[in-house]
Amino acid sequence: MNSLDSQQKKELIDRLARIEGQVRGVSRMIEEDRYCVDILAQVHAARNALKKVGLKVMDSHIQGCVRTALRDREDDEIIDELLRVIEKFTD
Amino acid sequence: MNSLDSQQKKELIDRLARIEGQVRGVSRMIEEDRYCVDILAQVHAARNALKKVGLKVMDSHIQGCVRTALRDREDDEIIDELLRVIEKFTD
Amino acid sequence: MNSLDSQQKKELIDRLARIEGQVRGVSRMIEEDRYCVDILAQVHAARNALKKVGLKVMDSHIQGCVRTALRDREDDEIIDELLRVIEKFTD
Amino acid sequence: MNSLDSQQKKELIDRLARIEGQVRGVSRMIEEDRYCVDILAQVHAARNALKKVGLKVMDSHIQGCVRTALRDREDDEIIDELLRVIEKFTD
Repeated sequence: MNSLDSQQKKELIDRLARIEGQVRGVSRMIEEDRYCVDILAQVHAARNALKKVGLKVMDSHIQGCVRTALRDREDDEIIDELLRVIEKFTD
Repeated sequence: MNSLDSQQKKELIDRLARIEGQVRGVSRMIEEDRYCVDILAQVHAARNALKKVGLKVMDSHIQGCVRTALRDREDDEIIDELLRVIEKFTD
Repeated sequence: MNSLDSQQKKELIDRLARIEGQVRGVSRMIEEDRYCVDILAQVHAARNALKKVGLKVMDSHIQGCVRTALRDREDDEIIDELLRVIEKFTD
Repeated sequence: MNSLDSQQKKELIDRLARIEGQVRGVSRMIEEDRYCVDILAQVHAARNALKKVGLKVMDSHIQGCVRTALRDREDDEIIDELLRVIEKFTD
């Protein structure tokens, strides 16, 4: 169970469909023997788009689960978990 | 034209197919209302896998295009370009 | 006003003193004409150490300010701010 | 022995002196009990400044050592080393 509403889900799923297209585009560029620097630009675009998806999900997680847990004072575990997520995300 | 041989191309295209699957997996997790932290772990895995693809392409670019350009003393432009790529990649 | 207790402050200030030493070490390596790759390793170590300081401060911020704001239901602004911080931090 | 000329060395050492000042500034902000988000902005600024130093050193390394090694056809080891450096740098 997460805190994404149906509008947010739709938006994220649309973004992810575009990212799938970008990843497929990288494959095609490799097959078509395109210049490495152009391939790298496309890889970079897909990674950035995934990062934005991650930030949206983290936003919803903090606005939803974390906020609820804190209000209910069940917070130690969820804050530890959040910090581990942020640490991983900033790798 | 790039410097990837057919073995490297095959390996990269296989990796990219797996990454497409990971991205599709993120979509499915969102649809299935899975826990945000688990979704974030999957986003993270896909981003890392894309980074590895980028490093492989950069490796091939340096081993091929950059090396050739340096040997032929046509190097200023290609080194500038490489540095811009590295800078972008470390964003 | 932040949420660091005196023990945490002391620990962070000790870490920062070591990082200052690392940064000074990079200067010295440049002056002494040391090999670029060794200089880069030292730059990398200092950046990682700074990142750890940042994560400790973010930890304390979430455990303190964010938690208090959420419990007091004054949360929209502080969560927006936290998300902007996380986004910047992951650049 | 590296490939930095005396002008580049001076510029980098000046930058590093400013970064030391930024790191000391973070310490002072912690002592003065400043707001976590402001401390994080300063940590971020210092990390970015260090990244720029790293990119300058990498630039000089590629323009100098790598270029020379490639021209002299002593290149496998230096390219492997460069790729490891880039990988570490993009962590």
